[in-house]
Amino acid sequence: MDTIISLSGGMDSTTLLAVAIQEGRSCLTIGFTYGSKHNQFENEAARLVSQYYEIPFRLIDFSSVSTHFKSDLLSSGGEIPEGHYEASNMKQTVVPGRNMVFASILAGIAWTEGVGEVWLGIHSGDHAIYPDCRSDFFEAMNIAVIHGTDRRVCLKAPFLEMNKISILARGKQLEVPYWLTRTCYKAQSIACGKCGACQERLEAFRINGMDDPVEYER
Amino acid sequence: MDTIISLSGGMDSTTLLAVAIQEGRSCLTIGFTYGSKHNQFENEAARLVSQYYEIPFRLIDFSSVSTHFKSDLLSSGGEIPEGHYEASNMKQTVVPGRNMVFASILAGIAWTEGVGEVWLGIHSGDHAIYPDCRSDFFEAMNIAVIHGTDRRVCLKAPFLEMNKISILARGKQLEVPYWLTRTCYKAQSIACGKCGACQERLEAFRINGMDDPVEYER
Repeated sequence: MDTIISLSGGMDSTTLLAVAIQEGRSCLTIGFTYGSKHNQFENEAARLVSQYYEIPFRLIDFSSVSTHFKSDLLSSGGEIPEGHYEASNMKQTVVPGRNMVFASILAGIAWTEGVGEVWLGIHSGDHAIYPDCRSDFFEAMNIAVIHGTDRRVCLKAPFLEMNKISILARGKQLEVPYWLTRTCYKAQSIACGKCGACQERLEAFRINGMDDPVEYER
Repeated sequence: MDTIISLSGGMDSTTLLAVAIQEGRSCLTIGFTYGSKHNQFENEAARLVSQYYEIPFRLIDFSSVSTHFKSDLLSSGGEIPEGHYEASNMKQTVVPGRNMVFASILAGIAWTEGVGEVWLGIHSGDHAIYPDCRSDFFEAMNIAVIHGTDRRVCLKAPFLEMNKISILARGKQLEVPYWLTRTCYKAQSIACGKCGACQERLEAFRINGMDDPVEYER
């Protein structure tokens, strides 16, 4: 095994897994239970995607720690706002430091397992509201991981300067099973189509001239 | 509140808390349950130290995540080795990425709580075996935290270039209640005096011409 893929079950990280597999990498996918409203649905998607690609999937229970974080994305927070993904009201759904924490944990597990690379699906669409998805963060975090693991592990973010539209275009070529993925932030099994995450996804499918195979409420 | 202190209940982080208090900072201390053999003893020490200084103490349950890490420091690992703290066999007690992960979590909590600084008790005595306690790691991690929290939080490590001997000298001036602290790595209430952690501590007291107020097995 040479690569850990941070797999949320959404379309970005699922495409990331497809890229890694196409490059011939030997992968382990890891998801987190952390108390988000859509957590059970995204983790189920991550499990199904891993099964589809015949890749081992591991779920890490972070829920006892995430009770110390506040965000409307979490079951303990307020309503998921509706609107565009990059709109300022979507900042309510930021879980403070979540990606930084997950990257650190994945690096520690990579060290434990003797795996050299941790791949993250962060992309430019995240930059507006998630500071721990931006390039300046990623570059510093990668150096921290390299030093902090004594050069055993590094981070890779192949989509860092791509957006959801170009990620989907890449995934189309790779025939990614998007019908298995889960993007909606809401606590319901069928995607709402109205939250920022749904809107950004639908926009990417529309611009790529593709039908989103996932079922929507409307 | 302006400062989160990572408090293990050992002599370094306890001295760090004393320094922060002397500087007039308003502190929250945080410890972790993560499955180390001495965890219950160090967390009890952290609680007593916080109580002594009348500082709120919070314990974070990281145990469901740490099952994915391998180390002889953990209850799931082998015997704690005996010998000098900086000896190569002490590397068996390194928990891969532990300090990186804890720093990330504390930064996320600081953001959630509106606290600007996270103080870590890492020092030069840790540099030999813990890569995520060294200066190159710390500098990159601090930049990652600053960017990853959109400049809301930064890390401080006032003891980064000091060793246990000089930390203890500082603590002596501050009249730190070392009788409440816990250093030994072993799964026993009374310190063994033989593991690397005990040996480094005893050496620091001896060189400072102080009696260690903690009870030892021999």
